Amino acid sequence: MSLRIDGERLWEDLMALGAITEPERPYTRRSFSPLFDRGRAWLTERMREASLRTHVDAAGNLIGRRDGKDGVLPVIMIGSHSDSVPSGGRFDGMAGVAGGIAIARALAAGGVTLAHPLEIVDFLAEEPSEFGLSCIGSRGLSGQLSAAHLAFTNAKQETLAGALERVGGNPREVARARRGDIKAAFELHIEQGPVLEAEGIDIGVVTAIVGITRIEIEFQGRAGHAGTTPMRGRRDPLIAAAHLIGWIRDRAVALAARGRGHFVATVGIVEALPGGSNVIPRSARIVIDARSEERSLMEEFLGALDEESRNAATAARVERSKFAILSDNLPAACDRHLQRVLADSAASLGLSSKSMASGAGHDMAFIAQVAPAAMVFIPCRGGLSHAPEEWASAQALEQGTRVLLEALLKVDAQSAGETT
Amino acid sequence: MSLRIDGERLWEDLMALGAITEPERPYTRRSFSPLFDRGRAWLTERMREASLRTHVDAAGNLIGRRDGKDGVLPVIMIGSHSDSVPSGGRFDGMAGVAGGIAIARALAAGGVTLAHPLEIVDFLAEEPSEFGLSCIGSRGLSGQLSAAHLAFTNAKQETLAGALERVGGNPREVARARRGDIKAAFELHIEQGPVLEAEGIDIGVVTAIVGITRIEIEFQGRAGHAGTTPMRGRRDPLIAAAHLIGWIRDRAVALAARGRGHFVATVGIVEALPGGSNVIPRSARIVIDARSEERSLMEEFLGALDEESRNAATAARVERSKFAILSDNLPAACDRHLQRVLADSAASLGLSSKSMASGAGHDMAFIAQVAPAAMVFIPCRGGLSHAPEEWASAQALEQGTRVLLEALLKVDAQSAGETT
Repeated sequence: MSLRIDGERLWEDLMALGAITEPERPYTRRSFSPLFDRGRAWLTERMREASLRTHVDAAGNLIGRRDGKDGVLPVIMIGSHSDSVPSGGRFDGMAGVAGGIAIARALAAGGVTLAHPLEIVDFLAEEPSEFGLSCIGSRGLSGQLSAAHLAFTNAKQETLAGALERVGGNPREVARARRGDIKAAFELHIEQGPVLEAEGIDIGVVTAIVGITRIEIEFQGRAGHAGTTPMRGRRDPLIAAAHLIGWIRDRAVALAARGRGHFVATVGIVEALPGGSNVIPRSARIVIDARSEERSLMEEFLGALDEESRNAATAARVERSKFAILSDNLPAACDRHLQRVLADSAASLGLSSKSMASGAGHDMAFIAQVAPAAMVFIPCRGGLSHAPEEWASAQALEQGTRVLLEALLKVDAQSAGETT
Repeated sequence: MSLRIDGERLWEDLMALGAITEPERPYTRRSFSPLFDRGRAWLTERMREASLRTHVDAAGNLIGRRDGKDGVLPVIMIGSHSDSVPSGGRFDGMAGVAGGIAIARALAAGGVTLAHPLEIVDFLAEEPSEFGLSCIGSRGLSGQLSAAHLAFTNAKQETLAGALERVGGNPREVARARRGDIKAAFELHIEQGPVLEAEGIDIGVVTAIVGITRIEIEFQGRAGHAGTTPMRGRRDPLIAAAHLIGWIRDRAVALAARGRGHFVATVGIVEALPGGSNVIPRSARIVIDARSEERSLMEEFLGALDEESRNAATAARVERSKFAILSDNLPAACDRHLQRVLADSAASLGLSSKSMASGAGHDMAFIAQVAPAAMVFIPCRGGLSHAPEEWASAQALEQGTRVLLEALLKVDAQSAGETT
C-alpha cells in the first residue's frame, strides 16, 4: 500500500487553523462568528486541494466528498468540528477535521479510489453555542434538530434558524439533512482526559460516549445572624449541601469501582445566599454533573441522590426546595465491529491501544443514532482540554490519523460487496 | 418616684427616626450620608427638647448632656447608634438612642437632677462603614481610633479624617475624644437573636460581648474535565471545603455544649472556581465567622481548625493554599456590678430577665475598655435583624427603657459619694 499520511502537513494545517482565533483570547473560534466563517473558508480550500467536492448541507455541516467506485454503496464518514469554546485549545475538534482532510489528501496523492464514497465532515457547532445548544450539525444529520431548536435565540435575539442560514444551511429543509446512507462513521479526537498519557498508550478505542445528566439541588433554611443565633436552633442549608458534596464523591467512587464502565460525578457549582460572612445562609445550591457509560448506574445514582438529599435536608432541618434534572442524555454505544476494526488497525501499525469510554460528549453520540459509529482517541498533555494549553503531539496526531486511514481501508474492503 | 417613661412618645420617636431612610431601600441611613446628617439634626432637636446640651466630640459622637448636682462626679453614659446597614431595620441602634432620650425626657419632666452628669450618646458609625471600619465613634471615645484608621478611604477616595470633619468631628484632635471620666455606660439594644422571644423572657442582661474571629481558608487542587477525569485521579478542592463545613458545624455544637458561654461558628461564604458545571474546581474558598464569649474556646477552635483543614487537604490530595485570620477581636466582659444592678432593676419592675452573651458586636465592646459597661437586650421578632422586617414591640422597648432608667437611678444613688 503506497498510501502515506503526511504528518508534517497535517501539523501545519492544524496550527494554521488554530491561528484563526480571536487575537485577544486565544484560542477562540466560536460557531456562527465571522472567524468561524473564515475557518470554514480555509477548510473548504484545503478540502478542494485534497480533491474533495464540498458543500454545506441543510444542517450547516461542511462536507467534502470523494466518490467511490460503486455509485450505490453507502458512505464512509470521517468528521469532527472546527468550532471552539471561548479561550479553548487548537485540538478539540480541529484534530479530527484536519485528520480527515489528511486522509483524503493521502487517497488523492496515492490515486486510490475507494469502493465507497468518503465524506469528510466539519459538523456545525459541536460546542455549546450562544443559542444554548451543542452538536447542532450532528443533531441535524441524525434527524434530531427540531423546530423548537431552530427557534432558540442568542443574546441578540437572532434565531438559530437565521444563524443556520448565515452559515449556508437551510432551516426550512433541515429534515433533509438526516442521513440514512452511512455505512460507518469515524471521529478522531484528543482524549481530553489523563488516561492514555498516564498509561503510555498510543490509541484509545472508544466503547461508548457517556450519558450526561445534570441535576440542580437547592436547600432552603432560615437566614440568621451568625453571632446571635445559637448553634442548636439553626436551619443552615449549607450544612445539607456540604454533606451532599462529600456523599456524591463517595458514591461516584463506589459506582466507578463496580467495573461496569466509566462513572463520574462532579459538583462544579456551589452557591450560598445571601453570601455574607456574618449571615447564616438562607439557601444553598449545587449543580451536579454525572456521567455514566451504563444507564443502570446512572439510574441507581439518581435514585440514591434523591433519597440522600432528602435525608440531608431532614438532618439539617431545612427544606429540599429543588431537585431538578436540568438535562439527561442517554449513553451512546460505539459500534462493536468498528471498535474491533480500530483495535486491529492500531495493532497492525504496531501501536498500543486500549478500550475506554468517552467521558465527554461528541458528535458521534448523535451520529450513532443513524449509523455504526466509532471514535479514536489520542493522548493529550496532562489530560487538559478547553484551555489554551491543550496539546497533543504531532506524532500522536499522525498515529491516530494512520489508524483511521487503516480502518477506513479495512471497512471499505470488507463491505465492498454490499449495497445500501 | 414620679419618673415615668412615655412609651408612646418613645415609639413615635423611633418610627419618625426610621422614616428618615432612602425611600427606595428602607431602612437605610448610612453613616456619613446626607440622610445620616438629617437623622442627627432630628436627634439633636429631640435631645434639646429633653433639656440636654448637645455637642459633637472629636470622634464624631453626638452627645447630649444633663449636668449632675455635683460638678466633680464622673459621667453616667447611655448610648447606641443611629446609623444602619443597607436595607436594615428601624431598631438596631436606634432603639438605644431613642431610649436614652426618653430617659432624659423623663428626668426633665420629673424635674430630677441626678448626682452624676448624664450623657446620652449617638455613637458614630457603629455598622461597618464605607471606610471598611465599624464602631468609629466608640473606638474614638475609648482611645482606639488610630491615625491609620483616619487614613482609610471610601470608594470616592475620601479619607475617614475628611468624613469625620464633615459630621462635626475633629480628626486632628481625635485623641482628645478618649474618655477617662465615665462611671458607668449602658446600652439598650434589640437582642438580634431568637432566645428571649423563644423563652418568653422580658430582658436580657448581657454578660459579655463575644470576641469575633474571621478566618478565610482556601484549597487549591487541579481543575479538570468533569467527564474525562476518573474519580480516582482527582484533586478536587471542594471535597476538602465541604468536609470542613460539616466539621466546623459539629465542632461549634460541641464547644457551645461545654457550658463555658456562647460559642458559634458559621460558614456564610463558599466559592468554587471556575464555577462551571462541567469543570472540577481548581480552588475552593470558605470564610468562617466564629464567636466566643470565652477566649480559650476560640483558641481551642482555631487550633483544631488549623489541624483539620490540613488533614482535609491531605485527604483530598489538594493544597491548603490559605489559612488567613482576617480579623480577631477579643471578647469584652460586661461589668459584673452593673449586670447585677440591671437584673435587680428588672426584678423590681416585675420583669423576667436572663443573663446572656451578645453574639453581635456593639459599641459597648469598645467602651468597656475605658469604663464599666453593660447592656440590656429586649426581645425582637423571630430574632431577625439587619432586615426591613426587624421588629420589637412598643411594650418591649418601653420595658427595656424602664429597666435602664431604674438602673441609672440605682447607680446614681449608690455611688453619689464617690468622685473621679
